Amino acid sequence: MITREQYEEARDLALEYFESADIAITDEEKERIEVADFGLSDLKNTGLELLVYVNTTRCCAKELVLFPGQTCPEHKHPDVEGEPGKEETFRCRSGEVYLYVPGKKTSNPKAKAPKGREKYYTVWHEIILKPGEQYTLTPDTLHWFQAGSEGAIVSEFSTKSRDEADIFTDPDIARMTKVK
Amino acid sequence: MITREQYEEARDLALEYFESADIAITDEEKERIEVADFGLSDLKNTGLELLVYVNTTRCCAKELVLFPGQTCPEHKHPDVEGEPGKEETFRCRSGEVYLYVPGKKTSNPKAKAPKGREKYYTVWHEIILKPGEQYTLTPDTLHWFQAGSEGAIVSEFSTKSRDEADIFTDPDIARMTKVK
Repeated sequence: MITREQYEEARDLALEYFESADIAITDEEKERIEVADFGLSDLKNTGLELLVYVNTTRCCAKELVLFPGQTCPEHKHPDVEGEPGKEETFRCRSGEVYLYVPGKKTSNPKAKAPKGREKYYTVWHEIILKPGEQYTLTPDTLHWFQAGSEGAIVSEFSTKSRDEADIFTDPDIARMTKVK
Repeated sequence: MITREQYEEARDLALEYFESADIAITDEEKERIEVADFGLSDLKNTGLELLVYVNTTRCCAKELVLFPGQTCPEHKHPDVEGEPGKEETFRCRSGEVYLYVPGKKTSNPKAKAPKGREKYYTVWHEIILKPGEQYTLTPDTLHWFQAGSEGAIVSEFSTKSRDEADIFTDPDIARMTKVK
């Protein structure tokens, strides 16, 4: 849960990120920026700010903002109703982002799992994305990511987004954020 | 057909557009920017510069650059092999773009059809896109677009891109550009 004040603070900071990266958004879009705390009430460490540009039955595009050290927790996108799960490409627009996927564990990874939730971070193969770099994830692949010390903006290009179908490793996570 | 020199000039100018819009691209991407003259050998008027970020069987994202007054000619994306045609969202990132789709003809439209090809421009319902504004096209819908006097950058979010399947109104058009 986040308070109305926390929501507005995070939204306004996300708007500053867009502005300093020269990403134009409309007034209507400014009003519908989402702030997700994933139900852990620790937005600074586990959280994400996002703007969905388009999400049809066939494809989706979003802009994600992560504040310094903020983490989008480990999850995957399973098949839904006989359709293959969400396929997504993350493209770093500004800052630096550390993405973790299954594979050989990276020694001395750049990111740290959020405190107290370490056991719910199980994939440690690191991909570093700097501005202009991107990575495409196949469906049903565990992943999580964290921004570097300057925060990050990441464009996400994907098939239909169904957040409610996501499976998180951490059982305490609820994708839908409550604003008090 | 375009000459190698024209290709390089257009590519370098597209790179300047990306740079001035703060859109980071990698060195590998710089080498594969496409310049399309649609076979009309009149790149200044009928043409498009583009960078495909990702194009899988399920979804696609591109960055399009149009120089001042440059036109992407009228076309549509039909169903292919029993699959619905390409659905696409155009999002203006910088400059101004005039998009034309079926519907009530707009009086005093901002764009002019390229000289000598006027009869191949048949849809005239105008949508003006400024930075941060976007429009989603359903499959198999005729459309064309032209940049304003400062050129434009447009992000395209879509289902799989199959340029070779596009149907152009102008019978002289060939989507695949030859570089001499």
